[in-house]
Amino acid sequence: MQKKIGKQTVKLQNPPTITSTYAIVGPKEGQGPLAEFFDQILEDDYFGEESWEKAESKLIKEAVKGAIKSSGLDIGKIDYMFAGDLLNQIISSSFAARALQIPFIGLYGACSTMAVSLSMGAMVIDGGFAENTVCVTSSHFSSAERQYRFPLEQGVQRPPYAQWTVTGSGAAVLTKYGEGPYITHITTGKIVDFGIKDANNMGAAMAPAAVDTISAHFNETGRNPGYYDLIVTGDLATIGREITIDLLKKEGYYIEAIYNDCGCMIFDNIKQDTHAGGSGCGCSAVVLNGYLYNQMKKGDIKKLLFVATGALLSPISSWQGESIPSIAHAIAIESTI
Amino acid sequence: MQKKIGKQTVKLQNPPTITSTYAIVGPKEGQGPLAEFFDQILEDDYFGEESWEKAESKLIKEAVKGAIKSSGLDIGKIDYMFAGDLLNQIISSSFAARALQIPFIGLYGACSTMAVSLSMGAMVIDGGFAENTVCVTSSHFSSAERQYRFPLEQGVQRPPYAQWTVTGSGAAVLTKYGEGPYITHITTGKIVDFGIKDANNMGAAMAPAAVDTISAHFNETGRNPGYYDLIVTGDLATIGREITIDLLKKEGYYIEAIYNDCGCMIFDNIKQDTHAGGSGCGCSAVVLNGYLYNQMKKGDIKKLLFVATGALLSPISSWQGESIPSIAHAIAIESTI
Repeated sequence: MQKKIGKQTVKLQNPPTITSTYAIVGPKEGQGPLAEFFDQILEDDYFGEESWEKAESKLIKEAVKGAIKSSGLDIGKIDYMFAGDLLNQIISSSFAARALQIPFIGLYGACSTMAVSLSMGAMVIDGGFAENTVCVTSSHFSSAERQYRFPLEQGVQRPPYAQWTVTGSGAAVLTKYGEGPYITHITTGKIVDFGIKDANNMGAAMAPAAVDTISAHFNETGRNPGYYDLIVTGDLATIGREITIDLLKKEGYYIEAIYNDCGCMIFDNIKQDTHAGGSGCGCSAVVLNGYLYNQMKKGDIKKLLFVATGALLSPISSWQGESIPSIAHAIAIESTI
Repeated sequence: MQKKIGKQTVKLQNPPTITSTYAIVGPKEGQGPLAEFFDQILEDDYFGEESWEKAESKLIKEAVKGAIKSSGLDIGKIDYMFAGDLLNQIISSSFAARALQIPFIGLYGACSTMAVSLSMGAMVIDGGFAENTVCVTSSHFSSAERQYRFPLEQGVQRPPYAQWTVTGSGAAVLTKYGEGPYITHITTGKIVDFGIKDANNMGAAMAPAAVDTISAHFNETGRNPGYYDLIVTGDLATIGREITIDLLKKEGYYIEAIYNDCGCMIFDNIKQDTHAGGSGCGCSAVVLNGYLYNQMKKGDIKKLLFVATGALLSPISSWQGESIPSIAHAIAIESTI
């Protein structure tokens, strides 16, 4: 069987099962509309640690442990850990991997990282290199704010189109043998950059990348929006979501009826004062591994296209006048094969 | 055939060929003992750009273009680009990927990144997902110094055991069909941390990780040091190299006669005032894709174990009192299969 079915899309020959997941979130996310679907809600975003960065690393460690425990597998049976996060040098992931002692591949895809880790985790299983992998990412509002923007103590006002970085981590254990939900197709993104330079306007910067990857997915699989019960991007939030709908219309794809965005789902933007919505690697990770996985296990969603989006800028690239290179990777997850 | 032959080691069923490489270096590296083996030597480390960060991104872009040109393949035939670098948010890689428009997977493995990219690039080919991949990493002395240490203008004195970050990028094109050299085995590292906290003493911090991975490689493949013409770590430099030899002796492996380290090879440490030797993702990348690949093509090296090592710290983790988590990944490269 041909696994590569288009320039960017592969079809897995023996689709790996997402056998278990774990989603852990901060206090604010635990007051949002998806609260009941998270496995653990923190009371304090320090999580018993002495810094936000150490707390974020603990989020990853606990998410991985939780997902592995729920899989019923011994941790020694996990062949690879694919992980990345927003902190410089992905220290949340590396320090968690130190505690877990699983062979470790570090990734960086900004907020697309959950899809990058699922891509690699699924390919090494289908490729015959592993039976079980764990895929994980995280973000933390407080560690991200001070790294990317301003010290929190400074109280800088945020523009209304800004997003709110989710505190949370989501992990998934993939297995060679299982009864689904299955990862059936992966469409890997190329960098798309429409020249947006405002680092507060991530949704608008990333939407064209989501459109590029979703179009490629449809074109290369021969599927259309009606094939899926839900197409979910993450994390474009309200502004990026509208742009995505509009741009896809121009390509002839009408997705509005079955489309949502993780950044629009995780908070009540009005009551929780989160402006355009959620962001951060943790956003799509906890929505997928908490809410969406639950819906798939219940049978309420049978065919899901998960499209995580990332803005691959840095504070340095912005200061040097660069625009925001963005990327999106799509993962088709289906209850039956 | 069983591809997984041990907890950390896989044997590739149809070993991909390294069909071409390209190594580009800065002026200082171009005055070192390996100068004749580099494809391009810069006269100025700004490389015609207005910042060191933009110059580093151009290094990656030119290395990828050079390797693809030398492969004879059209860039549209490259299925995936696996890349990462030392800059925050791996901007060197992302901005290069923007120009190249190849489906892009971002990696972070600090100075182990060349081995991470070869691991993923080889597995997706052997797994049936790709025919051609490009694997690349970079570092730049000036962009790294100011991100990790001090502004260069400050002229801070370096301790004698410090290493010198290499300015350079190395890229390799892997193909499904080819006549070698072949990537035959991959041993993926776990995090090893012996508690060293001095961020100037990377070689000592990383050596135990190299030892852990090399031991695992021997144990899981049934090979011993005598199997290889050369075992090369990168970048432990003089201090880490000695520690590696000593610690492996305690495990019963005597590698000294056929062992070297990329950080010890790239500079003349006395004449070039580079203290313990070279470091940075670019160090092992240009030594592999420049000198070592040349030696393999000539037949002077037939069996190579390439063990790239990474120190997965960040300035923040050091400031918060953390030790240095380290990792090493081993890639067996052989002329015949």
